[in-house]
Amino acid sequence: MCQLLGMNCNTPTDITFSFEGFRRRAGLTDHHTDGFGIAFFEGKGARIFRDNRPGASSPMADLVSAYRIKSLNVIAHIRKATKGDVNLENTHPFTRELWGENWTFAHNGTVENVQVCSECHYQPIGTTDSEAAFCNLLSRLKKRHPKKPSDKEIFDAIVEITSDIAENGVFNFILSNGQWMIARCSTNLHYVCRKAPFGKALRDDDVMIDFSQYTTENDKVTIITTQPLTKNEQWTKMKNGGYVFFKDGDLVYEIEGTLPECKPHV
Amino acid sequence: MCQLLGMNCNTPTDITFSFEGFRRRAGLTDHHTDGFGIAFFEGKGARIFRDNRPGASSPMADLVSAYRIKSLNVIAHIRKATKGDVNLENTHPFTRELWGENWTFAHNGTVENVQVCSECHYQPIGTTDSEAAFCNLLSRLKKRHPKKPSDKEIFDAIVEITSDIAENGVFNFILSNGQWMIARCSTNLHYVCRKAPFGKALRDDDVMIDFSQYTTENDKVTIITTQPLTKNEQWTKMKNGGYVFFKDGDLVYEIEGTLPECKPHV
Repeated sequence: MCQLLGMNCNTPTDITFSFEGFRRRAGLTDHHTDGFGIAFFEGKGARIFRDNRPGASSPMADLVSAYRIKSLNVIAHIRKATKGDVNLENTHPFTRELWGENWTFAHNGTVENVQVCSECHYQPIGTTDSEAAFCNLLSRLKKRHPKKPSDKEIFDAIVEITSDIAENGVFNFILSNGQWMIARCSTNLHYVCRKAPFGKALRDDDVMIDFSQYTTENDKVTIITTQPLTKNEQWTKMKNGGYVFFKDGDLVYEIEGTLPECKPHV
Repeated sequence: MCQLLGMNCNTPTDITFSFEGFRRRAGLTDHHTDGFGIAFFEGKGARIFRDNRPGASSPMADLVSAYRIKSLNVIAHIRKATKGDVNLENTHPFTRELWGENWTFAHNGTVENVQVCSECHYQPIGTTDSEAAFCNLLSRLKKRHPKKPSDKEIFDAIVEITSDIAENGVFNFILSNGQWMIARCSTNLHYVCRKAPFGKALRDDDVMIDFSQYTTENDKVTIITTQPLTKNEQWTKMKNGGYVFFKDGDLVYEIEGTLPECKPHV
C-alpha cells in the first residue's frame, strides 16, 4: 500500500515540515520505497517531481526539500507497488488536463476491474489500477459535463462516480485542480486544519516546529494524510465512504462515511 | 523568441554537455530569461522540469545538470516571452496524453489565430500561442486517427496540419512521444548526428568534450537545436517548411523545406 499527503491553504505555504516527515516513511521509518512524487500547483501550472527511487533517498526529493516551494495546493505520494511495475509512468501523482485545468490525483489502495474503453477521452499511459481509475473518473466527468460546472456539481459528480469505482476495492485518494482539494477515504485518511492561534507541532520523528513564527493570523492550512504526521495535534480520522472538499484551507463540503469499516485486502 | 534543444538517440545518453551550453543562453550569453523547461523520456514516462526563472540561474536547472539523467529522447526550451505572461503554465515544453502516450512539444516563434474550439479534445491551460497550436495539432490528429496509426501516417498528418498552422507565423518546433522526435523549421533549426568514429567537440563557450570516452561504436545521438552548440561539427541547417523525423538517432523521414526564406517578425 502507498501513503498520501495533501495540503490546501489560503496563502502560499511551504510544505517542507510535513513532507520531510512524510518522506521518511519511504525507506527510513517504513517500506514505501517504490517511488515518490509530489505536485505543487502554482497558478494554473503545476510543478511535478517524480522518481522511481525511494522518497527518503531520492536526489529529486532532496531538491524538493531544499527548494522550499510555496503553494496553495500540494499532493504527494510514496509508493509501495501492488499493481504495475516500478517505473516512472506508474509513479503518482497522475495529471491530465480537464476543462483547461491541470487535474492531479494520487491513490492509496487497490481497485479491481476498472474499465477504460478505447473510446474513453482519457487513456492510461502506465499499467496501474490507480491511473486507470483516474482516467475512468475524468472520462465520465467530461462526458457528463462537457463544460465546467459549479464546484458543488463537480463534488457531487465525483462522489457518485468514485463511490462506484470504490465498490471494487480500496480507494483512498486525493485530487486537486489547483483551486480546491477533494479527498476520499476507504481505510486510512486523516486531516488537520491549522489556523490562528498557531502553536507548536511535534512530528512523529520528534522534530518540533513553531507555526506561529511562519504564519499570520489569517492563514489557514489543511493537511490531509494517510497517517497523522504529528503527535500533539487533533487529527480527524475519516470513515469509509467519507469525502471532504477543501478550498482556501476551509472544509466546504463533506460527506461523512457510513459504509462498514473497510479493511485493506493487501 | 525562444530557443529549442532536442536529443534523440539509440542508447540512453546524458545531455548535460549540450544542455549546459544551451542554458548559458538563458541569462549569460543571451536574453532568453523568461523561464526554461526540459523533458526527459524514460520508458513511457517523462520527467519534466520547468521553472519560470532563467535557465542559467534556476536551481531546477542546476539539479538537471547535476542529476545526469540518461534518456533516449529529451526536449528543452528557454523562453523569451512574446505572447502570454511569464508563469509556470506558459512554460514549455507542454505535454498531453495521446493514444496512451506522453506527447511533449516545444515551440520557437509566434503563430497567430490558432483556433481551439471548446469542443476540441485538448484545451490549453495557459495563454500562449504555442500551447494553443499544440492543442490544435493534437485535437486534429486525434480526430483524424482515433487509434494510433503507423509512424509514417503520423508524420504525414503532422506535416499537413502544422503546415497549415505555420501559414500564420513562425513555427519552429520539436515534438516527441518518447519513441521518435519530429522537428519543423520556419526560421532557425539545425541538427547534427553523432556516431562512430566519435571525436572531440568544442562548445561555443570553449568547453571541450571527447565523445569517444563516453560512447560505444554502436551509439547514435542526434541533437536538434535553434543555433549550433559546437564550433567544430558539421550542423545541417534546415530550410523553411522542412521537417525531420528521427528514431534511434537515425533520420527516417525528411521533407526538405521549399518555402521562401522566412524572417521572424519579432
